[in-house]
Amino acid sequence: MPMGGVGEIGKNMFLVEYKEEIIVIDGGLKFPEDDMLGVDLVIPDFSYLEENQDKVKGILITHGHEDHIGALPYILKKVNKPVFGTKLTLGLLEGKLKEHGLLSKVKTNIIKPGSSLNLGKYFKVDFFKVNHSIPDAVGMGIHTPAGIIVHTGDFKIDQTPVDGEITDFQKISELGKKGVLALMADSTNAERPGFTMSERVVGSTIDEIFRLAKDRIIVATFASNVHRLQQVCDAAYKYNKKVCINGRSMVNVVNKSMELGYLNVPSDLLIEINDLDRYNSEEIVLITTGSQGEPMSALTRMANSEHRKVSIVPGDTVVIAASPIPGNEKFVSKTIDNLFKRGAEVIYESVSGIHVSGHASQEELKLVMNLVKPKYVIPVHGEYRHNVHLAKIAESTGVDSNNVIIPEIGDVIEFNKKFAKITGKVNSGSILVDGLGVGDVGNIVLRDRRQLSLDGILIVVVTLQRGTNKVMAGPDLITRGFVYVRESERLISEAKETVEGTLEKCRSQNKKEWSQIKSDIKDDLGRKLYEKTRRRPMILPIIMEIPK
Amino acid sequence: MPMGGVGEIGKNMFLVEYKEEIIVIDGGLKFPEDDMLGVDLVIPDFSYLEENQDKVKGILITHGHEDHIGALPYILKKVNKPVFGTKLTLGLLEGKLKEHGLLSKVKTNIIKPGSSLNLGKYFKVDFFKVNHSIPDAVGMGIHTPAGIIVHTGDFKIDQTPVDGEITDFQKISELGKKGVLALMADSTNAERPGFTMSERVVGSTIDEIFRLAKDRIIVATFASNVHRLQQVCDAAYKYNKKVCINGRSMVNVVNKSMELGYLNVPSDLLIEINDLDRYNSEEIVLITTGSQGEPMSALTRMANSEHRKVSIVPGDTVVIAASPIPGNEKFVSKTIDNLFKRGAEVIYESVSGIHVSGHASQEELKLVMNLVKPKYVIPVHGEYRHNVHLAKIAESTGVDSNNVIIPEIGDVIEFNKKFAKITGKVNSGSILVDGLGVGDVGNIVLRDRRQLSLDGILIVVVTLQRGTNKVMAGPDLITRGFVYVRESERLISEAKETVEGTLEKCRSQNKKEWSQIKSDIKDDLGRKLYEKTRRRPMILPIIMEIPK
Repeated sequence: MPMGGVGEIGKNMFLVEYKEEIIVIDGGLKFPEDDMLGVDLVIPDFSYLEENQDKVKGILITHGHEDHIGALPYILKKVNKPVFGTKLTLGLLEGKLKEHGLLSKVKTNIIKPGSSLNLGKYFKVDFFKVNHSIPDAVGMGIHTPAGIIVHTGDFKIDQTPVDGEITDFQKISELGKKGVLALMADSTNAERPGFTMSERVVGSTIDEIFRLAKDRIIVATFASNVHRLQQVCDAAYKYNKKVCINGRSMVNVVNKSMELGYLNVPSDLLIEINDLDRYNSEEIVLITTGSQGEPMSALTRMANSEHRKVSIVPGDTVVIAASPIPGNEKFVSKTIDNLFKRGAEVIYESVSGIHVSGHASQEELKLVMNLVKPKYVIPVHGEYRHNVHLAKIAESTGVDSNNVIIPEIGDVIEFNKKFAKITGKVNSGSILVDGLGVGDVGNIVLRDRRQLSLDGILIVVVTLQRGTNKVMAGPDLITRGFVYVRESERLISEAKETVEGTLEKCRSQNKKEWSQIKSDIKDDLGRKLYEKTRRRPMILPIIMEIPK
Repeated sequence: MPMGGVGEIGKNMFLVEYKEEIIVIDGGLKFPEDDMLGVDLVIPDFSYLEENQDKVKGILITHGHEDHIGALPYILKKVNKPVFGTKLTLGLLEGKLKEHGLLSKVKTNIIKPGSSLNLGKYFKVDFFKVNHSIPDAVGMGIHTPAGIIVHTGDFKIDQTPVDGEITDFQKISELGKKGVLALMADSTNAERPGFTMSERVVGSTIDEIFRLAKDRIIVATFASNVHRLQQVCDAAYKYNKKVCINGRSMVNVVNKSMELGYLNVPSDLLIEINDLDRYNSEEIVLITTGSQGEPMSALTRMANSEHRKVSIVPGDTVVIAASPIPGNEKFVSKTIDNLFKRGAEVIYESVSGIHVSGHASQEELKLVMNLVKPKYVIPVHGEYRHNVHLAKIAESTGVDSNNVIIPEIGDVIEFNKKFAKITGKVNSGSILVDGLGVGDVGNIVLRDRRQLSLDGILIVVVTLQRGTNKVMAGPDLITRGFVYVRESERLISEAKETVEGTLEKCRSQNKKEWSQIKSDIKDDLGRKLYEKTRRRPMILPIIMEIPK
């Protein structure tokens, strides 16, 4: 049962259930869509898990990206079960558990890639190493009484990985040889022909940039791409530069990765931001957050001259070693423009080799299909079109087209001896997190925010005498986000006359129901305003009552 | 003086002034940025033109795209001057003038590519044909007493254009030979190496798709790309299919282009949407709007099963012959996903050759530089980074780097015998159009809409007795877009207590100024709500007063 991560990129979470046992794979978050105004993040609706928590034997994590671990604090608060993951993955999760006051309450268990784990009566899980844009990522072979399910996790096949740890082909082949019931495969890059390039390509590009740069270098990338950070540090060391780490999430990941041995740098390579003046600018490399042009990130603040410690100056080389995540294109462009305006040389996406994807392209996916030889294929981790393309890839490697199942969130994919098919649906969907509120923002609140955002609000307040409905004060009209009040005095006074007319009409027709009066105000005033402005602000009539 | 179109893509408008004469080049609009909530469109602030309208000799248009003609109705209402453009350009403008009731009031003059025009005492303008993604596009050689200014307009160099009309190299070389003071060159694609592909490539791809398609074909593209429409119609004719035109803007452009002779189709090729049932599905080609996934467009409605006449069915081939304009990526993806879900085969961007750009890449720009041999270069029609890249291209062809001028909106670029430089700034910027309001939405209104969109509004109404400030009714709390009221009754009742506490405190401290009371309510309540929810709704205290 996918609880998220199918038909979308984000909030990955899968359940595998056999009789009275459930295991959970990942618990990720998703960043809100543009129309989810004011929402901070989105997590899967895990009510099915809550209702069946006695069945849950454990939560297995494939790797430490937000879309795989970000919902776990919210889930673990309600469904506190043991968590299994590799060392770095759990290291990153622990930071989150700490923020949520859960560190001492949740039992985390480190697993090693290549190892196996028995869970409950029915499940045995083999973890195998895969390459991805974060170290310590694993896929899983899940042995169940119905057969083996292979989950690739997020993966690519990097034949020359930075840490030398290649995808565990042996384990995958071994599973394939035993006979695999179903393969859940990462479809994110299923549209892309060929092979995804090795992370080492980025290393060569960075080396070349460092060789040519005459002055200070600033590199922005994803904090969790530890291999890329390693390559930047290696180049800095080679060219006799010092490295300063910038931005909260970057500092966190670097510290955690060094502590756990995933990032190896000489002790005197790193310098503090307050010591920057002690070095010549050509000796300095800044590694920073902000590769997505996020409004509050370090690089964006530098580009806007709002950073307290670092100002961009002519001569700086700024390298944006990332490609924009869909939806962030305009933020990134804006940052690049601002960096150019301050005189920096900016190296970004269009330069080949400064970013490579962490997901497998078509030829890698075919290779995995041929190693695993699954009976059924379930595309995961993609929007619908990605899943369609993965289905085509599966078919091209000989999987029966009837045996590719493209599920929706909440679908129950049932396997038995005769067939595999979608046989039902469980409670599922999205929970919106806004500030401290988890799930208290829903369609009505969002609809109101949307209307407010487009044309603002016009509030009509009037105080009536109880019983007689005589107007004791008002009507007063207050508006926000609708028009400039100063330049629209005439409009507002005409609107007030309209309301007075409506009130008069209600009295003469002896309408006494407030709901009726309010509804008449809304109708009459809405019509008037639309005619005059072609806008539809939210109209909110408020009636106060005082005793006779 | 650029009034728009530099440091941005959109609202192109340039003024050329010599002594007491001004000519205007283009008057375009721009679609609002994400943070311009509720705004419909953006036009240049043309107050400088209004203040100097006696000087204005004419408005010259390069081509008929919205970002070159969309602001003209607004400008012409205030600055009614003769307009000059090619036949199709004026044909498209006239549709807009009609909507705004200006058709009989504005004098439009058709110019022919290759012709010249004397304007005022000082100006002579040579119009030369260029290739672009709309027919009848021109560049201009503007002869002034200070020298010749060449404006490329939006252009590419298509050596095999669909209509056989290639860019007028002769005229451009002739101008170059005379000696050109300044070149204003289209920088949109200055980041792209090589040459932009010919529109004919799209024709071959379309032909191939038509050859292979087994059933109905639906093609979405930009309405104004008449050459592409021609190629679709040609393929339909070749494969014995009928064409049905769909979507308001598509119908408008097709009618206008056929009327003016820019689109040539056999009379029985086109069929009406109501006659679709009279044909077998494999005989049908639909050409439709919606290539950008615009929420109300025909293709989007088809993809969402909301179109009244056309439902997508398995077997349909949908071709999206366009690339997403920055900012529209997610809309387009959503449409593609929905089309796949209904079982259509979807052919889009990632398939090479289904869209080519209308703007010149680096090698074309170099060619133009070498033909024109300008003393000065001014990059236009690009965001800042595009203009920086164009500057580099100019330098690579031998233009002195000091002679490339990257202006901002409103800059006065002054040319005299000794130098060319930015010597001042005139009134300029953006005017936001929202419904019927032109310029009545500004920073305060937008700031309010932004706050309302994030966390909604909480209104506090209380009726006080004049003089004593005794509470006669309320406080009542009304909220929209903040929290689900039903699930937050406790929060709202706590908030009410907070307000009552504040009112009590004000009375006991003998605070009588309403502004003070309101400000105290805002502070106390804001703190309380943030503590409880980590949200900052707009808090709007309203005090009604009744006599003692």
